[in-house]
Amino acid sequence: MEATGRPWPNGETPLIGREHTTLGIIRRPPTVAKGAVVDVVSTLGDWYADSGPLYQRLAGAVRRAVADGRLQPGTLLPAERRLAERLSIGRSTVIRAYDLLRDEAVLESRRGSGTWVAGAEPGDGGVRHDGLQRVAPSIGDDVVDLATASLPAPAELAAALRALGDGPLGDALLRPGYSHAGVAELREAIAAQFTADGLPTVPREILITTGAQQAMDLIVRHFTSRGDAVVMEDPSSAGALDLLSEAGCVVHTAPSVASGGAEPITEVLRRRAPQLVYLQVPLGPEGTMARGGDVVTLARRLPEEAIVVEDASLRDLAFDRDPPPYLAARAPADRVLTVGSMSKVYWGGLRVGWIRGAEKIIERLARTKARADLGTPVLSQHVSAWMLRRRDGVLAARLDQIRTSRDALAAALTELLPDFAWTPPDGGLTIWALMPHGTSEPFAELAHAHGVLVATGESLSPSGRNSDRLRLSYAPPPEVIREGVIRLARAWADFDRRTRTAAMKGPAP
Amino acid sequence: MEATGRPWPNGETPLIGREHTTLGIIRRPPTVAKGAVVDVVSTLGDWYADSGPLYQRLAGAVRRAVADGRLQPGTLLPAERRLAERLSIGRSTVIRAYDLLRDEAVLESRRGSGTWVAGAEPGDGGVRHDGLQRVAPSIGDDVVDLATASLPAPAELAAALRALGDGPLGDALLRPGYSHAGVAELREAIAAQFTADGLPTVPREILITTGAQQAMDLIVRHFTSRGDAVVMEDPSSAGALDLLSEAGCVVHTAPSVASGGAEPITEVLRRRAPQLVYLQVPLGPEGTMARGGDVVTLARRLPEEAIVVEDASLRDLAFDRDPPPYLAARAPADRVLTVGSMSKVYWGGLRVGWIRGAEKIIERLARTKARADLGTPVLSQHVSAWMLRRRDGVLAARLDQIRTSRDALAAALTELLPDFAWTPPDGGLTIWALMPHGTSEPFAELAHAHGVLVATGESLSPSGRNSDRLRLSYAPPPEVIREGVIRLARAWADFDRRTRTAAMKGPAP
Repeated sequence: MEATGRPWPNGETPLIGREHTTLGIIRRPPTVAKGAVVDVVSTLGDWYADSGPLYQRLAGAVRRAVADGRLQPGTLLPAERRLAERLSIGRSTVIRAYDLLRDEAVLESRRGSGTWVAGAEPGDGGVRHDGLQRVAPSIGDDVVDLATASLPAPAELAAALRALGDGPLGDALLRPGYSHAGVAELREAIAAQFTADGLPTVPREILITTGAQQAMDLIVRHFTSRGDAVVMEDPSSAGALDLLSEAGCVVHTAPSVASGGAEPITEVLRRRAPQLVYLQVPLGPEGTMARGGDVVTLARRLPEEAIVVEDASLRDLAFDRDPPPYLAARAPADRVLTVGSMSKVYWGGLRVGWIRGAEKIIERLARTKARADLGTPVLSQHVSAWMLRRRDGVLAARLDQIRTSRDALAAALTELLPDFAWTPPDGGLTIWALMPHGTSEPFAELAHAHGVLVATGESLSPSGRNSDRLRLSYAPPPEVIREGVIRLARAWADFDRRTRTAAMKGPAP
Repeated sequence: MEATGRPWPNGETPLIGREHTTLGIIRRPPTVAKGAVVDVVSTLGDWYADSGPLYQRLAGAVRRAVADGRLQPGTLLPAERRLAERLSIGRSTVIRAYDLLRDEAVLESRRGSGTWVAGAEPGDGGVRHDGLQRVAPSIGDDVVDLATASLPAPAELAAALRALGDGPLGDALLRPGYSHAGVAELREAIAAQFTADGLPTVPREILITTGAQQAMDLIVRHFTSRGDAVVMEDPSSAGALDLLSEAGCVVHTAPSVASGGAEPITEVLRRRAPQLVYLQVPLGPEGTMARGGDVVTLARRLPEEAIVVEDASLRDLAFDRDPPPYLAARAPADRVLTVGSMSKVYWGGLRVGWIRGAEKIIERLARTKARADLGTPVLSQHVSAWMLRRRDGVLAARLDQIRTSRDALAAALTELLPDFAWTPPDGGLTIWALMPHGTSEPFAELAHAHGVLVATGESLSPSGRNSDRLRLSYAPPPEVIREGVIRLARAWADFDRRTRTAAMKGPAP
């Protein structure tokens, strides 16, 4: 379909109707991939409505879902206790249903690997937190994406390409093209930016990475081992959560610095003595900005033995007031690694991020980076350097654009989903919203069926504590946002009706 | 200094005198980095010339090297046996020297970690094969690089940027920019290239990576665990060797398919039952092309349980005859992963590579890729797609250019280093040369001091079996190559004299 609504101020057109991959790995097929952890509850449909003993109704619904391909071989099912909770039935009912299906060879189980649909082993070694895939599972041809918090490229980018093709890149083209730590111009531009923002930095303290995601990957890869303790905020970054889960780290959580202040997380740091601490400061998924006093207090109390990651990717998107000082500006020089990215203000497609840290740590990470890919593509680095030299202009235009979109999402939520609770954000690209009731994963599945993607609290929460929240992006243009909220409101009416009906039919046997 | 000599045909200027980073991690400082495995022998200088008991002379030389910073705290020393062999002295002499230095706290030892210069722990967890750093340790302002086998960008690249800035990229700029498996246009272009080359392929069988190095990293990360058996050719890729060493795999070697045919490696595969097999076909570091019959035989005998990586990065650089069929074209569809790259024919700075494999494996690797960096920068991908659509023209010009450079290196070697033995290559960018005597690592250090970088056989050999070989790149322009060989000949005269002198002074006590 063709996109509707007025275009972006600089001539861009909205995203509706364009086929594009997003923060999901690749376009998810209509069925569920082998090895994926799926929301079986929504897959089962109206299983309760059948007749017969409850365990047979449940077994029948799973059997049908397997038979018609909604549940694929290798798909992991929830543990008995969890499914029972989700369905508001007794655990013994689930156990009997699973037993029956194992006898029929519809399901298979193995200690430590859980229960899965027979016919294939669960892929990828079993259950993992895979927030990357959950944040934005797929994009259809007519789906509004309120999950991916990424802007299109600014108009300057095409200009940068033309300009680079004509000259400034010429010298680089004569070199072999390998730059493990990053091209000099970009390291200089980023060091200058940190210095201007109150954190004196030289280029040798900067490692260029393929986005903030690779920055975190290199850090996890270099500094953690299986079983290491890690402390992160809850909610946090889906990408970081994925990496730490994959690496086998034991994740301990604390309320975010922005919402909880310095005390609660300081207490967790003291008790857990982590190898790694990952903080999204000053802005995290909740969209609220940490206070300067809390950052300063926390900087003083950081554990001496830990590597502390300060993910400041969203810092430049503070709307209304200046952000607090960098954590690294107030902590001992070799304790904090500061991560940044071109993705939020500039463009995700550049895939350029960086790590700032003590020179000796940057050298070690540069070696890990060389092993990973020999360096980030240099074209993207030169375009990034070109854009950073025009930072003030780009940033001012971006913030105007984002404020307009934030207002559009806020207005649509107030009008169309008045029961959702949310705090106006201090910056960033998302609103963190509390559902009136229910959990976000089944609601997000239903919303997807209604043509709108949202990120779930569960995909951003190491603890599952935020399963009653949604993260809504206002990166799309205002008209697309409004269409998305209209669909979300329809989905909510549907969800609300279904859950009330299920509640009336009554709980477990 | 200014570059001399005539420029490349398309207006490029030679590399002499330009400061640029290469396949070394970052510019290596004049001293040796903490944790590095260094060639202590060359660091010691003329230690034998001192007076006193031999172990005291040796200890004195190490003490001086530590005192004046040539050996930094944390630097790992060779094991006693190995140093004894290298110095042609008795092992007991080295043991006594090390003991003395430990008593003086100049050195420290720990079981399993070896012996290192006191004052810091060995970096990065101890001894590792770090061929990436050894292949091209650093580039000074007036060093000829015969180690890095990478061409400058073709003239088309700047044109691609201008063209993309003006149009074809426009649509992509409106998207968030994430493409975990790769942008559609590029996956299509690569699938079409494989199909045209006799290996029918669809885009879903292609995963775009940040160069062949990341392709191998994702494969190692996804498919191997510590202690897994791996089979690779000897010599092989420094980058792959690094990754396998880092991952804790047990590497078994076989003569390359190109030089040894199918039988020896088949025998090793049968005996070792590896989890992973890494083959550089049809062209490896030796520069000779595998025969079609051997590829077909090997394809039939690949182990059923193993993931087989066919690294075909150099395939397009076959000079004189058509390469043999792809291994994947003759093996069962889900057994072989074929790796390719833009770096050799086009430009290393693009950092674009790919993995071709069964769709279900590509899906799993795409997930690993998403975790690693959310996708390769899309600008580089669009430039790559643009260039691949002009493949025939670019390739023809490249092969002409490379043949000229190969002839220049061959002529210079014949004239200036007649005692070096080598086989004219069938393709690729390097000549694999046998030294008349001595080992390549100390010679390479000396050559560096004479202003020329070469890759050592040891950096490319899992077994150390090729320590009497050098790999010489003819990627630079002809004049630079000649200057490099002149310097190499001077270094050889020096090396030859030194080793003869040492031999005359006589061996162990």
